[in-house]
Order: sequence, then structure tokens, then C-alpha cells
Amino acid sequence: MNLAQKFGLCKEYWSPKIVGELNESYVKVVKLKGEFVWHHHESEDELFMVVKGQLLIRLLDHDIALHEGKFLIVPKGVEHLPVARDEVQLVLIETKTTVNTGNLRNERTVSDQWI
Amino acid sequence: MNLAQKFGLCKEYWSPKIVGELNESYVKVVKLKGEFVWHHHESEDELFMVVKGQLLIRLLDHDIALHEGKFLIVPKGVEHLPVARDEVQLVLIETKTTVNTGNLRNERTVSDQWI
Repeated sequence: MNLAQKFGLCKEYWSPKIVGELNESYVKVVKLKGEFVWHHHESEDELFMVVKGQLLIRLLDHDIALHEGKFLIVPKGVEHLPVARDEVQLVLIETKTTVNTGNLRNERTVSDQWI
Repeated sequence: MNLAQKFGLCKEYWSPKIVGELNESYVKVVKLKGEFVWHHHESEDELFMVVKGQLLIRLLDHDIALHEGKFLIVPKGVEHLPVARDEVQLVLIETKTTVNTGNLRNERTVSDQWI
């Protein structure tokens, strides 16, 4: 899987694209810049892995700085807010049913496509 | 999740340790050196991500060289043989039911523990 090429095809921020299938999950790539929205996923854990840049994951009681090559699992039900001061290239692994805005449906909600 | 610390706790080669839970999957770390055994997983896809070193994944009709930071999904049913010429630090993501030797049970088969 050529991630550099896949990230090159990502034109919009905060719009995850599916690059692989792993049992009941999808592997996705997404470019982030700026602040997302506070949300949680009712019944789905979510894995974040930073490929380029530095991502801040804000939780209700503390923040976690994710550097390149690091990853974090946000367990189901945990409220979180991703913040990318500068552009971040991120790999996400989450169940096929996971919606980017979790419990919310708003203008940031997207339906993910293969890339 | 501090991967460097987790790899530091891995004392044996080819003995995956569980470091995280992601829905119906486990995230595991494992150190590899030498050649494993040809095997496949009947109904489970497997994600390999190289953290340190270079891993060769031999398939029946071609080989794939996995460098640091690269990952590969070996789909269910696909016969494969991991080969680590020098030590490799690897992250695996696979379903909780996955056995390291897949369709085989032999002296290389281990039951994975949390680390």
C-alpha cells in the first residue's frame, strides 16, 4: 500500500478515504488542518496513527500530543477533539460502520469513499 | 501508547504481545528475526506495520519488502512467510481469534499475552 500516493489524492481536509479492508474495519487516510468538532463514537473504538505532522487529541480532562509514527486508540464512548495546528497526515482504523462525527450529524459529517 | 517501552519488554522473537484492543481486534507488538513458517489465516485478514527494520513478506508468487513506517494487509486465505534478515520491530493488528501460525499448530504456535 503506497500511502504517499494515497495522501497525494486527498484533496480536502477532514474527509477520510478508504484505502484498505481489515476484517470488519476499514483503514483510511485523511489530511487534517485546524480544529474538528467534539464528538464520541457510541460503540466503536478508533485507532489514530500520525504519518506526518503532529496531532493534538483533546480529551475532556487532558490532551495527548501524537507525533509522527505514534498511535492512539480512543475507546468507545470517549469524547475527543482532534486539533491540527499545521497539516497532519493521519491513518485511521475503525469499523466499517464508523461515522467521522460519531454521535453528531452536521456539516462536518461525510460519507467515506475508496481512494 | 509507548511502543518503544513495549518493544523493550519483548524478550523472545516471534512471540506477539497484546498492547491494545480495537473493537474485535487486538493491536500487538512482536520482534522478529529469521524466517517464520509458511501459513495462512482461513478467515482473518492481518495488518503488518514495520516500526523498525525491514521485513520481507514472501507470497506464493512474489515477495514484498516492508520498510519502516510501511504497512501491508495480508487478506484471509493468502499463504505468506515473514522473513527478517535482521531484527524487525513489528505492529500487528488482527482479530482476537487469530493464531500466529494460522492454519498450522506446531512448535512456533504461541498464545498471546498482554504486555
